[in-house]
Amino acid sequence: MTDAGNAAYQRLKARFARIAALGEAQAMLHWDASAVMPPGGAAARGEQLATLAGLSHELMVDPGMATDLAEATADGPWDGANLALMRHAQARATALPTALVENSARASAACETVWREARAASDFTRVAPYLAEVVKLQRETAAALSAATGLSPYDALMEGFQRGIGAADVEPIFDAYEAFLRDALPRAEERQARLPPAIEPQGPFAVEVQRALCREMAGRAGLDFNHARLDESLHPFCGGTPSDVRITTRYDPAAFAQALLGVLHETGHALYERGLPDAQARQPVGEAAGMAAHESQSLIIEMQVSRSDAFLGFLGPKLSTAFGGDAAAYAPENLARLWRRVQRGFIRVEADELTYPAHVILRFRLERALIGGELAVADLPGAWNDGFARLLGLTPPDDARGCLQDIHWYDGAFGYFPSYTLGAMAAAQLMRAARIAVPGLDAALAHGDMAPLLGWLRRHVHGQGSRLGFQDLLREATGKPLDPADFTAHLTDRYL
Amino acid sequence: MTDAGNAAYQRLKARFARIAALGEAQAMLHWDASAVMPPGGAAARGEQLATLAGLSHELMVDPGMATDLAEATADGPWDGANLALMRHAQARATALPTALVENSARASAACETVWREARAASDFTRVAPYLAEVVKLQRETAAALSAATGLSPYDALMEGFQRGIGAADVEPIFDAYEAFLRDALPRAEERQARLPPAIEPQGPFAVEVQRALCREMAGRAGLDFNHARLDESLHPFCGGTPSDVRITTRYDPAAFAQALLGVLHETGHALYERGLPDAQARQPVGEAAGMAAHESQSLIIEMQVSRSDAFLGFLGPKLSTAFGGDAAAYAPENLARLWRRVQRGFIRVEADELTYPAHVILRFRLERALIGGELAVADLPGAWNDGFARLLGLTPPDDARGCLQDIHWYDGAFGYFPSYTLGAMAAAQLMRAARIAVPGLDAALAHGDMAPLLGWLRRHVHGQGSRLGFQDLLREATGKPLDPADFTAHLTDRYL
Repeated sequence: MTDAGNAAYQRLKARFARIAALGEAQAMLHWDASAVMPPGGAAARGEQLATLAGLSHELMVDPGMATDLAEATADGPWDGANLALMRHAQARATALPTALVENSARASAACETVWREARAASDFTRVAPYLAEVVKLQRETAAALSAATGLSPYDALMEGFQRGIGAADVEPIFDAYEAFLRDALPRAEERQARLPPAIEPQGPFAVEVQRALCREMAGRAGLDFNHARLDESLHPFCGGTPSDVRITTRYDPAAFAQALLGVLHETGHALYERGLPDAQARQPVGEAAGMAAHESQSLIIEMQVSRSDAFLGFLGPKLSTAFGGDAAAYAPENLARLWRRVQRGFIRVEADELTYPAHVILRFRLERALIGGELAVADLPGAWNDGFARLLGLTPPDDARGCLQDIHWYDGAFGYFPSYTLGAMAAAQLMRAARIAVPGLDAALAHGDMAPLLGWLRRHVHGQGSRLGFQDLLREATGKPLDPADFTAHLTDRYL
Repeated sequence: MTDAGNAAYQRLKARFARIAALGEAQAMLHWDASAVMPPGGAAARGEQLATLAGLSHELMVDPGMATDLAEATADGPWDGANLALMRHAQARATALPTALVENSARASAACETVWREARAASDFTRVAPYLAEVVKLQRETAAALSAATGLSPYDALMEGFQRGIGAADVEPIFDAYEAFLRDALPRAEERQARLPPAIEPQGPFAVEVQRALCREMAGRAGLDFNHARLDESLHPFCGGTPSDVRITTRYDPAAFAQALLGVLHETGHALYERGLPDAQARQPVGEAAGMAAHESQSLIIEMQVSRSDAFLGFLGPKLSTAFGGDAAAYAPENLARLWRRVQRGFIRVEADELTYPAHVILRFRLERALIGGELAVADLPGAWNDGFARLLGLTPPDDARGCLQDIHWYDGAFGYFPSYTLGAMAAAQLMRAARIAVPGLDAALAHGDMAPLLGWLRRHVHGQGSRLGFQDLLREATGKPLDPADFTAHLTDRYL
């Protein structure tokens, strides 16, 4: 490494630390807007966020940045990866003309607003021209990013959410899942029908009790409230920064499971952020490895751990003590029946673990076709309903329960959907590897102790930051790239 | 106005709007740090704020800014004032070498940390070398600002908090107040001794009840919670932005008055921010007119209104209903005795309306001598105690109750203290003018209705933004520059 090369690299680290600090400020302002901001603050908040985003982009495309990137040298697994990620981030940022970025942001904001009305009225035609504009600009974005990265246009968008895996990997995996589901779903339904019916716990469930329980469970999963908050927002999420992570949920006095399992889900995200490598803070290589990796961490806590027999054995008595009423409703086997209920439905966010991927597969195929130009926006509702019927045997009664249900496309997020199912699959694969590597993992879960699992995840996932792409992360952690067999084995074990 | 001059002015408006949006983001992050941030987030928050401050400074000293300022022309009361304020802000920013700004920030941060220990141990010697460094850098800062503005060094610092009034105006006003107090204080104490003793309301005062009451009173004063929040923090303050103002307080179950009157104080600040001219949002001329003007708005609500006979007549029964217990404790005349009690004490923030200015006068004289180089840091405790004895006839028993009590100097804020008393005086002057201009103002207060007063303040103070300096603001609102006679008349009426 030359002295000049190293000096340039050190300057780059300072540049990226600044950009990251701006990103942290944006994350906090986003949290504030969702969790505590009075409604009258919305317009000003938009200005603040736009200003920070603009400054961040200016720092990225600064000519001095390009000079430093050309000169810089860095060795070793961390610095080498960091420099490569810097180059990549700058290439993606400079690939997009400012006008395209601004037009895209504007078109997405306009489309999202109209989408809210269109969904409420279940009227796709109302939003179709806005979506057409968003898709047109997304196609331009994809083309520009494709030219800069050498990826296909759709992969170039997907990379914005998850580096290290593309449509060519995803397609066979999703096709195979479709085949698996065609056989597994009727069998799971049959098996379920033979079980005694689940007993619904009877509320009301005092919000204060729910809040304390959620907080306790998040803490038990390893979240340190010296570096975290739990608040409420309409749409639960995990935000903030690694040293100050903010998770939210929504409490319903008539039902507690959504908040509790939601908090455990967000806690999985939060633990990932908390476990990122301190030594790489505010550097690209110190960030989480992508949205699929992130979703694997929320789902490993929510799906793999929290609905496991071992953990339900611990949780049941806790719930019974907290809420009182009929103890049978909190028996672990009843909780299992409640929280592992398979049910075909139209709405992705309400879907069970087995059918959820079908929702994602449909969206993956459709958005790929939209970006590829093979599907016109006007034909989306029909294509959606056909695809849904083929995957789950049901035809959506209206577009509100069809192609209007999710915000993502209307907000300009194309290439994101696969992350959900890639994350679910990675969660199963990581859980299997952890069970093999960590003796007594399930025995610990039976006492509500997630520390052994968390230790393994910290070492093999969280502490790796963004050093590895999705497939390499899995390869180093589990000895193989994404292998959907671990997910289907988990589903077979749990549902068949 | 030339086209080129106007084009340059429009570019400047965009530049300053960006800087203001960065300032709003900083304000929100400050609020978050004080009101909701988990302690583990502090280090990262420091980085975020430093980054935003650095970017803001870079935008201010950008060479393009100087070019635009040289070319720009603007007419009319608003645009003309705005351009002048832009020039002034840029001149102040560019006057300070970056190294001085950074060294100052670092020295203040280090000093503030040591000050917390020194105050706890009442050991001035521990913090003296740190304070000496802060004073040295403040003197350099004052000299640089003096060279850029033509003001004296102390006035140049004072201007950073309040434009349009300097030490030459303040000195005779404060000297006269000292003379007034020498006569008035013993008389007020004598008169008080002849009154029946006040009845202390007996707690506990449930925090939930206090919170609801504070919220109701802030709302009644005119605060719209669609654009505001009320939260808790260790040190109550008013932060946020004009469209999303955040006030805080601290609840003590053993006493309610501090929280309630504190919230009314912060509400006064908040109403000022809320009433700033929308058409000038994010422009220098759209900001509040300075800290003394700001303090006049908090004190007009807390001192002039909330402790007036008229308002206490409304508030007493409300308190009695809220808290129950002995109704005599909430009788308006008892509340008057409680909340207008004169008592010589060592601590500024606990001082009553009559003796408060003595605390400020002492600090004004000492900080002016420190900046002028006539007083050495080592001699501060002695000078403090001498001055305090001369003003209030008491000698502080230790430095914790003397020159260590306030954060301001240790945090590098020199020139701020006069604002408190200038604000108190301006509040009396504005209240008197409002009473003359708005018939029925007290009759409305007797029904808890502050709308007539608020309407007048919106027109004559809030809506003026920063168009006028302190003296001109008062001149346009009340027909004369700051006239302490209105304050002493108010005190004479209330205490003598």
